[in-house]
Amino acid sequence: MNYPSKLVEDAVNEISRLPGIGKKSALRLALHLLRQEVQDVKELTNSLIALREKTVYCKKCHTISDTDICSICKSPKRDETLICVVEEVPDLLAIENTAQYNGLYHVLGGVISPIEGISPSDLNIDSLLERTQNGVKEVILALNATMEGDTTAFYLTKKLRKKGVLVSGIARGVPIGSELEYTDEITLGRSIAKRIMFD
Amino acid sequence: MNYPSKLVEDAVNEISRLPGIGKKSALRLALHLLRQEVQDVKELTNSLIALREKTVYCKKCHTISDTDICSICKSPKRDETLICVVEEVPDLLAIENTAQYNGLYHVLGGVISPIEGISPSDLNIDSLLERTQNGVKEVILALNATMEGDTTAFYLTKKLRKKGVLVSGIARGVPIGSELEYTDEITLGRSIAKRIMFD
Repeated sequence: MNYPSKLVEDAVNEISRLPGIGKKSALRLALHLLRQEVQDVKELTNSLIALREKTVYCKKCHTISDTDICSICKSPKRDETLICVVEEVPDLLAIENTAQYNGLYHVLGGVISPIEGISPSDLNIDSLLERTQNGVKEVILALNATMEGDTTAFYLTKKLRKKGVLVSGIARGVPIGSELEYTDEITLGRSIAKRIMFD
Repeated sequence: MNYPSKLVEDAVNEISRLPGIGKKSALRLALHLLRQEVQDVKELTNSLIALREKTVYCKKCHTISDTDICSICKSPKRDETLICVVEEVPDLLAIENTAQYNGLYHVLGGVISPIEGISPSDLNIDSLLERTQNGVKEVILALNATMEGDTTAFYLTKKLRKKGVLVSGIARGVPIGSELEYTDEITLGRSIAKRIMFD
């Protein structure tokens, strides 16, 4: 596109480098920012700079944190005998948001993937095994049900059992609110095979 | 959502104030920025600050510009006897991008809308009428085919004719590449009523 303003062009180019934002959306965002107060634009940019420069990865669970040890790992209210293993930070946030989990987390930073050249040593696995030394009773694997996720779960289960901790996985089945008719066959098949007895 | 990091929370809140970006997309963008080099994040934020602080509206055509008079109005290659009137800057960019138009533009900054309390005096209409004094032969109205757009076109036509300039509107009809079967009835009806004779 030809822009009569180099400044608009620069901003559109920068914004459209963000994932999932094309040139048209970038232009819409740029024109939106043009109509905002300078102060509001600065609040946005300052928050982005602070995000990038001041956040660190928690030394225990590897999630994004403002401090060396994150607020979850630090909290005295959390059950320290339970660790939920997730692939990435958004998974942790999704679980945290359910308000149904009161243990700690461990962010792997990905999954084992020979195709993409990601081996166990590229992931936060050693630190997970180390953490299980300190009174951890159960590790919940909350990985995605992909080939790589399943491979990683299998690898971790073997390693964790050697450490003498219980290993569990999140329940798979038909989501609440979904209709059976429109549930994919693999999920529906598994939900019958792994059915739960009523008390 | 609960974030273990206040900095992530701040950034997500700021990003999700942008139009069309919800909390989930904002989080995805924040996590993406976290993985970028500090320099890249600064290039983004600097471009946004520069966009907001350094751009002005062209004193002639009211489009966004880096200088008092924009590059289109300044260009000696453009036909100064022709002005295309658009509602907003993105409309100008869309037409400019066709590379089919070589005249000047005039950005109204909206359309007449009694419901939203926008009267002719809120729009860049006086400056348009003034510009027609200087050898302009034709004004093309490229407004959207909404009730407000049509009202504005009618208002402008009356005013512009008094100034002795030709007034035209962009062609409406079935888009090239569309199938007649799926074209809305109003467009199709108008495309028959306003059919074009083959030479």
